[in-house]
Amino acid sequence: MRLSDGVEWGVHACSLLAVLPTGSALPAAKLAEFHGVPSAYMAKHLQSLARAGILETVKGPRGGYRLARPPAAVTLLDVVEAIDGAEPAFRCSEIRRRGPAAAPAREYRGLCGINRAFLRADEAWRAELRAVTIADMALTAARDAPPSGVDKAARWLREAVR
Amino acid sequence: MRLSDGVEWGVHACSLLAVLPTGSALPAAKLAEFHGVPSAYMAKHLQSLARAGILETVKGPRGGYRLARPPAAVTLLDVVEAIDGAEPAFRCSEIRRRGPAAAPAREYRGLCGINRAFLRADEAWRAELRAVTIADMALTAARDAPPSGVDKAARWLREAVR
Repeated sequence: MRLSDGVEWGVHACSLLAVLPTGSALPAAKLAEFHGVPSAYMAKHLQSLARAGILETVKGPRGGYRLARPPAAVTLLDVVEAIDGAEPAFRCSEIRRRGPAAAPAREYRGLCGINRAFLRADEAWRAELRAVTIADMALTAARDAPPSGVDKAARWLREAVR
Repeated sequence: MRLSDGVEWGVHACSLLAVLPTGSALPAAKLAEFHGVPSAYMAKHLQSLARAGILETVKGPRGGYRLARPPAAVTLLDVVEAIDGAEPAFRCSEIRRRGPAAAPAREYRGLCGINRAFLRADEAWRAELRAVTIADMALTAARDAPPSGVDKAARWLREAVR
C-alpha cells in the first residue's frame, strides 16, 4: 500500500506557495524547478489540486498557481484526497457472501466486520492527516532547513515572482 | 492508495482457520472454495502467511494449513504486513534536498517534516490494526452472519476436515 509520488510533490508545492508574497503566483514550471522534479508531472498534480479547490490559477505574464485559501485551512488530508482520491485503503468485495456457506443476499445486514475494522483504521489515519495543515508544514520546513538552504530559497523566490 | 485483495482473502482465511477443530487443517483449495475465490491466488497468499509465521502446514492426506498460534495472538496488522509488506504508505524521496535551494547533504538533520507527519498517520493506522485480532474477527463473523449461513458453514467445515 502506498501513496503516489504526487502526494509528496503536492504537499511540497503547497508549502512553497504558502510563503509566496501576497498577490503573487508561480507557474508550474517554476514549481517543478524549485523541487527538482519533471515539469509535466508536476503540472498534472497542480491541476488536480486546482480542481479540488486547493489552488487557483492567476492569468497573465506574472500568472501561475497560488493557494485558493489560507495555508492553515488546507490539511494534508485535503492534498492526499485531491491527488490520490478519497477511497478507503481496504475495499471489501463481500467475500462473506460467496462460496458454499453463502446465505441469500437480503439476510446480510450491515458491513462485514473485517471491513468495519479496516474502516476504523482508515479513520484514525485520516484524523491524523486532518490535524496537520500546510501552514504547519511551511513553518516546519523553514525551521528544519539548513540556514544556507533558507537563504537560497528566499533569493530564488524573490527572483521567481518578480 | 489501496491494500491488495490478498489482505481481504488472508483475513477471511485466517478467521475460518480460527474455528477449525483442534488438530485439523484445510488445504488451499478448500480455503479457496469456501471463499469463492481462485485457488492459485489464494495459495499464493497462504504461502505468504506461512512465511510470516502466521500459518503452518500439516503434511499428509488430511493436511493443509492451520494457524501457527492462537487466533488472539494474530493481529490484522500481522496479516497486512505478511501480504502487503511493512513499508509506510508515504515514501519520502527527499525532495527538500533537490533544486536551486538545496544545501549540502550533511546540513540536513532528521527526517523531512512532511515525512514525519505522514509517519504519525501511519502509526495511528497501524495501532488500530494492531488492536484487532483474528479471534475478534472470527467472533464478529459468527455473530453477524445470517443463521442459515452459520449452519451451512458448520456443515461444510465438518465435511471438509473429515
